[in-house]
Amino acid sequence: MANQEDIFKKVISHAKEYGYVVQSSEIYDGLSAVYDYLQNGAELKKNIREYWWQAMVQLHENIVGIDAAIFMHPTTWKASGHVDAFNDPLIDNKDSKKRYRADVLVEEHVAKIEAKIEKEVSKAAKRFGDAFDEAQFRATNARVMEYQEKADTIIKRLARSLEKEDLEDVKNLILELDIVCPVSGSKNWTDVKQFNLMFGTKLGATAESAMDLYLRPETAQGIFVNFLNVQKSGRMKIPFGIAQIGKAFRNEIVARQFIFRMREFEQMEMQFFIRPGTQKEWYETWKQTRMKWHLSLGMGAENYRFHDHEKLAHYADAAADIEFRFPFGFKELEGIHSRTDFDLGSHEKYSGKKLQYFDPELEESYVPYVIETSIGLDRMFLAILSHSLVDEELENGSTRTVLKIPAVLAPTKAAVLPLVKKDGLPEIAQEIMDELRLDFNVSYDDKDAVGRRYRRQDAAGTPFCITVDHQTLEDRTVTLRHRDTMEQRRLPIEELHGAIDREVGMRHWLKKIL
Amino acid sequence: MANQEDIFKKVISHAKEYGYVVQSSEIYDGLSAVYDYLQNGAELKKNIREYWWQAMVQLHENIVGIDAAIFMHPTTWKASGHVDAFNDPLIDNKDSKKRYRADVLVEEHVAKIEAKIEKEVSKAAKRFGDAFDEAQFRATNARVMEYQEKADTIIKRLARSLEKEDLEDVKNLILELDIVCPVSGSKNWTDVKQFNLMFGTKLGATAESAMDLYLRPETAQGIFVNFLNVQKSGRMKIPFGIAQIGKAFRNEIVARQFIFRMREFEQMEMQFFIRPGTQKEWYETWKQTRMKWHLSLGMGAENYRFHDHEKLAHYADAAADIEFRFPFGFKELEGIHSRTDFDLGSHEKYSGKKLQYFDPELEESYVPYVIETSIGLDRMFLAILSHSLVDEELENGSTRTVLKIPAVLAPTKAAVLPLVKKDGLPEIAQEIMDELRLDFNVSYDDKDAVGRRYRRQDAAGTPFCITVDHQTLEDRTVTLRHRDTMEQRRLPIEELHGAIDREVGMRHWLKKIL
Repeated sequence: MANQEDIFKKVISHAKEYGYVVQSSEIYDGLSAVYDYLQNGAELKKNIREYWWQAMVQLHENIVGIDAAIFMHPTTWKASGHVDAFNDPLIDNKDSKKRYRADVLVEEHVAKIEAKIEKEVSKAAKRFGDAFDEAQFRATNARVMEYQEKADTIIKRLARSLEKEDLEDVKNLILELDIVCPVSGSKNWTDVKQFNLMFGTKLGATAESAMDLYLRPETAQGIFVNFLNVQKSGRMKIPFGIAQIGKAFRNEIVARQFIFRMREFEQMEMQFFIRPGTQKEWYETWKQTRMKWHLSLGMGAENYRFHDHEKLAHYADAAADIEFRFPFGFKELEGIHSRTDFDLGSHEKYSGKKLQYFDPELEESYVPYVIETSIGLDRMFLAILSHSLVDEELENGSTRTVLKIPAVLAPTKAAVLPLVKKDGLPEIAQEIMDELRLDFNVSYDDKDAVGRRYRRQDAAGTPFCITVDHQTLEDRTVTLRHRDTMEQRRLPIEELHGAIDREVGMRHWLKKIL
Repeated sequence: MANQEDIFKKVISHAKEYGYVVQSSEIYDGLSAVYDYLQNGAELKKNIREYWWQAMVQLHENIVGIDAAIFMHPTTWKASGHVDAFNDPLIDNKDSKKRYRADVLVEEHVAKIEAKIEKEVSKAAKRFGDAFDEAQFRATNARVMEYQEKADTIIKRLARSLEKEDLEDVKNLILELDIVCPVSGSKNWTDVKQFNLMFGTKLGATAESAMDLYLRPETAQGIFVNFLNVQKSGRMKIPFGIAQIGKAFRNEIVARQFIFRMREFEQMEMQFFIRPGTQKEWYETWKQTRMKWHLSLGMGAENYRFHDHEKLAHYADAAADIEFRFPFGFKELEGIHSRTDFDLGSHEKYSGKKLQYFDPELEESYVPYVIETSIGLDRMFLAILSHSLVDEELENGSTRTVLKIPAVLAPTKAAVLPLVKKDGLPEIAQEIMDELRLDFNVSYDDKDAVGRRYRRQDAAGTPFCITVDHQTLEDRTVTLRHRDTMEQRRLPIEELHGAIDREVGMRHWLKKIL
């Protein structure tokens, strides 16, 4: 576990050192749970967007994209359920004045109990390694069972109380468990209150006309309210999808794990509108389609798994996560949700306008059902960055740090390195730059020895280095070095474009998911 | 003038009908000055972003891009001057309860005076057309001079009072001019007050720990606060630039003209860091470079002009707009500003941290000067949309509506049209789709007669139509129809990719600005 933590720390510091991610407003000592993407991070993020968009919109005749505003009419969030149901139960400690998520306090308490179980078991295992003692085994077993039962009872009661919104009982649970504030150590707790996670603001200047707005907590609703606009202007026939990439905001109380859970984040969502009754098969189809997209990046099938939800959100009749193996364990990367007609139906109710589709085959109108695929762009970024960062031991005993970002997503596709800054080598290097940069993001690097430049480009994630040397002057060939294999081969300048394109060109990667 | 207004109305309704832009949250009767981009709008916007980004970042070795958060530490906006100086002077009418920008009230009053001048002049011109009367000419001239002088005096006094923040005098001016509320007709005015244009929100859950945040009113500051992060991690040498595309928010009181002035909008900005003393030449260079970019789109040099600012913002030592001829006249599309060391210097002061660059050639450290280029993505979108929408009279006497969007930016590059839905034509059409869609956004259209499909694609802005007919079955050739010329030519399927790429491929357009 410590090892995994170290790896995660290394990812975070590498992200800063190599121009990927830093905390927002660092010069003002940072803004909590908000991050800025620097020069390499911005390109990686842009490339992820593009890979998703092309796979989703460009490759699907029946999926189109939109770009709706972050500001929406406030009634939107009543219809979606966010005004009433998008809350965290919070509790304050009166002595420390610190605020906590009540459910997290309880869950952490249970986690401590579970840690005790593990300790008992491992202690016992060690003893049993020496000599087996049935009486002791039974005693240990009984203690473990007892702990386990206690933990289960607590979690069940918490879930029940939260579901019934019985906040008094959540507080009672905290008191009964003798949970203390980690800062003050006291049990002097306030009541538990629901706290809405949406950021509010005011539109307009006058007190009378000012409108309470929210920053959208999800991009999905921008799609639902435009369902008919898109369907009609695009003459779309069901089944069809609407995709969107954009920012969303949540005033998370416990925001942590670097860019995994942020207060400002970016979503890539697609809502697929279907005939009622066909949701089961489309749900399965989209689970598979999305998994195929992830696998196309070649980061290892063993690092992904489905997690089917047992507890469903109020709008869903089925839901699953695609989880990825982050440095801190398997966690949600993408969600696939069968949202039924909840959203469109609710917007019908609140707007008083029909949001129906006339199905020419069935010759009837209905409110379509929806399958949603929703992926956090920042999480996808973190998955790629943390999976790609590798320390490799080389044959000669030295090590190198390399960011094996899938080539199609790499921020810079190739670095052009003139061996020396004279003899006409920079001029040829420049010529190569000028040809390649019309299609690829390329960089120029003429500082330090070539070996160091290779290491620098490895660590920055650049798939190719192109070295211009004195032989280039004679035969117009260069060395093309491959980041992952470190293989170097000599080829004519004219063949560079094709050689690079074959590995980084999006069309080649997209073919894998056709 | 009426004609121009009609054209603008047509642009707005075309934008809705063809899936470009609609008002946000239309089903809830809309949100004022906030708009959503639908399926074609989202693609056009995306293509504009890409064309700007590639021209700015990909083609310039010494410019990199970042993607900073909308949320920034609040001290940022003290340092930038937005907390103190980003205000509109507002005044309320006590009877109608309506709020106005005080300066706009005065300016509109002056506009009325100027309209009077125009009327006098045109009346006089008409009279002089009949017979010249020197006495009358002198009298008219005197009246015109008098009006003009009056108008000038008012505007000068307004400017002076605003500059000195003498809001009492602004109110006096309104009273002296007998300006009435357009709604109530009364002169029952409140005092003039400054109103900050930033949207506020609160980060965090506790009352004590909640932080007052602003939604960024410009993207530039995200670049300035990251200046050192980028310079160091990217080993950048001055002169170099940092580019960024992102959302910004302004609580405009008078937001209007469709997507020209919105409360939520998107900026494409580049801050170019230079040696102090070189700002004049870099300012000129960037004026020319940016104009070249605009002209590369082929929308007519006569539709652009520079407007040099006489009144400079507090941070600038030179500033110019690139204006475009919108349906409502020449208006700002992009700004080029010489911002001196104001921003970095101010962040040094407020953060207590050095934001300096060590210049290895001069062997000294300094706070760099900055040239900024800042373009409104939504304005660029409007410029393209309004310029591209044309009603053409055809040779046969009929008319067609066509959106002549520069092909590189067109949402859909080609539509594939099987002549009939049988005889194997759909299968070949599908095969063509599958080949082209790996590189281009293409669509499939098999409804209605081919002539109607051409018209529909013209109106949607699709540069090419590919018609698959019975001859295709025999010789695998198709008809390629060109949106602007309506020229049709027959060519083998294998040549389609190249023929389309030559006109829509970004590399060909980018070459024009090299």
